Order: sequence, then C-alpha cells, then structure tokens
Amino acid sequence: MKALDKVISLFRRFPGVGPKQAERFALYLVKAPDSQVEELVEAMRAVKRSVVCCPECFNYSEDGLCSVCADPSRDRSSICVVSQPQDVAAIEKADTFNGTYHVLHGAISPMEGVNSEGLRLKELVERVRSADGAIKELIIATNPDTEGEATAIYLGRLFRDHVPGITRIACGVPLGGDINYMDEVTLGHALKGRTRI
Amino acid sequence: MKALDKVISLFRRFPGVGPKQAERFALYLVKAPDSQVEELVEAMRAVKRSVVCCPECFNYSEDGLCSVCADPSRDRSSICVVSQPQDVAAIEKADTFNGTYHVLHGAISPMEGVNSEGLRLKELVERVRSADGAIKELIIATNPDTEGEATAIYLGRLFRDHVPGITRIACGVPLGGDINYMDEVTLGHALKGRTRI
Repeated sequence: MKALDKVISLFRRFPGVGPKQAERFALYLVKAPDSQVEELVEAMRAVKRSVVCCPECFNYSEDGLCSVCADPSRDRSSICVVSQPQDVAAIEKADTFNGTYHVLHGAISPMEGVNSEGLRLKELVERVRSADGAIKELIIATNPDTEGEATAIYLGRLFRDHVPGITRIACGVPLGGDINYMDEVTLGHALKGRTRI
Repeated sequence: MKALDKVISLFRRFPGVGPKQAERFALYLVKAPDSQVEELVEAMRAVKRSVVCCPECFNYSEDGLCSVCADPSRDRSSICVVSQPQDVAAIEKADTFNGTYHVLHGAISPMEGVNSEGLRLKELVERVRSADGAIKELIIATNPDTEGEATAIYLGRLFRDHVPGITRIACGVPLGGDINYMDEVTLGHALKGRTRI
C-alpha cells in the first residue's frame, strides 16, 4: 500500500527506528483518531516555526536567549562546552552546575579536520574574546570518545593563553557500574583519575 | 520549551517509544529541513485519508478490496483468521499460504468476554454463512497467548458445525531457537505437537 509504505519510509529516517518500529508507527496512525494526527501535525510545525538557537550559547530556545542565558543568577565566568543541545538538558538535570553553556553542535572529527560543517567554534572564540578576560573556566564536557577527546584537546590548545582554567569532565566507572564488567580503557581512566578520600 | 515538550508528549504515545527516544525524535525534527517535515505531514495525512478496511477480510487496503481479496488466484475456500493487519503481512512474507484472510482486529479477552469492542467476529460468521458451505478450512492464526488461545477455542466451537476443517497454527520451538533456553510451556507444546519424520 503506497500511503503506508511512504509514511513507513519517512519514519525510518527517525533516529534509531528500524523497519518493524516504523511499521508499528504507521499502523498506530491508522488507528489513531484524526484529531490526534492533526495535533501531531500542528506540534511538529510549531517546533519548526518556534525553535531557534540561543544567540549566546547556541542551545535551543524558543525566543531569543535560552533559559540558562536569560537567567541573571547564572555564573557567566564559567562556560561548559558540550556537543549537543540534549547534553545541556542532561547536565541541567544533575543540578550541580551554575555556569553557562556553549553548544558546539557537533565535535571535531580527526578524520575530517576542524572545519566540520556548522560547528559553533568561531562563536566560542568570539565569546571568550569579547568577554575580555571575564571567562575564568572552560569545562569541556564533550563525550569521552574519539571525536569528543579530539575536540577537548583542540579546545585546550586554542584557549590555553586566553582562559585561566580549562578542565575536562572526569572519566571513570559510572555509579552503580560493575568494575568486573567495565572495559579496560574506562578502568585505566578511573585509576589515572583517582582522587583522595 | 513548550513546543518541544508538546511534540515529545505526542511522540510518547507512539507504541514502544520512551522519553529518551521521544526527545531524540523531537530534536531530529528541529534539525530536519522544513521540506522533510512537510513531507511527513503530507504522508501522515495521506494515510488517514486513504487507508481503509477491506470490506471482505478487514485487512487494511487503499481502495475497496485488499490486494489478497482482489487476487483471483487466491483460494477462497481457506480462510486464515488473524488478530491484526500486520499478522497478514507477516504470513504473506512466509509465502506458503494461498488462501484468504480474516482480520479480527483484536482477540477475545477471557476477562472481558466475547464482545470486545470492534472485533470483526460477526463479519466472519456472516462470511462463512453466505459462502454456503464453500469454506473448507479455517486456520486460526491468533497469537499463542491467553487471548489468542481463548479466541481459537471460541472460534473452534462457533464454527464446529459449519466448517469441515478448523485448524490451529503449530506451536513449538522456533527455527534457530535453543531448547535449553525455551520456556517449559513452549517445550510442552513442541512435544505434544511432534510430527513423524
């Protein structure tokens, strides 16, 4: 059936959706009331219409500054650099960081070089430069994988002479994790990064 | 952000979608080009507009009879009774059945009795009755779970005096399955249903 096949092929483009799940989504639509499908159509269009990037940190926002940048109580001298907007949400949930963010929208790929398309690197450089010494710490919170580590090393070198404190989030055994099942690279990092108790 | 939260809550209603996946879908929409989102909107509306139930077997169809019922080479004396339209697609992929189908759109729940809302049972009774003895076999291919078994038993009694052959699909160890890891009820069925080699 052409209409079903078409919507299945479009759901297949969603992240992490395989053929079976796309089919279930399509059949869910067939059974759902028209009003519910129209509600989804309107919600999707509203997202496309209203979600923009915060001009300060490039996190997603609905009008102008994002909620973090618009909050006067946040410490503007500390910037946590992340790859994706969802990383901001995850760190905000931990509720331990009171600084601001900078979303790169990607990471440096060692294979493709620095100029990855759409990376908000120049904007971070400009933000640090225009703050004129007011930025005291850059916390590099990219993922501990090849791209994230390459990004961390690159940012470390780039801002060495401009920001007094450049730090990297700790890498080690997650809470509730089992040392027995942990990979050796993580364990190596956990040992190297040991702290006094 | 209201627009994102709204679309996330609507994606949460999709079958098998948790909070993290719904968030990933919403962020996928933010990054996707407008044209792609409009393509999805149009495809969803097309599904709502054009997918109907086949008047003969109640499988999904795009106009009138479904592809199986419209095919003159199918054997109309054999009806395979399934719960859901996706079961038809699965059995068609196996490419071993040349009869027609009847989709119940649900199963009898022993707790809620026979009159489960929307079940196409009366239509099957009418189809067998109006065929006037031409239906030679009913293959009950509902799932081997409580509801599916209850449906099979109920259909067996209902059509006992009207259809000469009423059969149930075999229940046993799936191909590639490991006897060691199979649950005891399945193994019991596999032993009871053993065939000569």
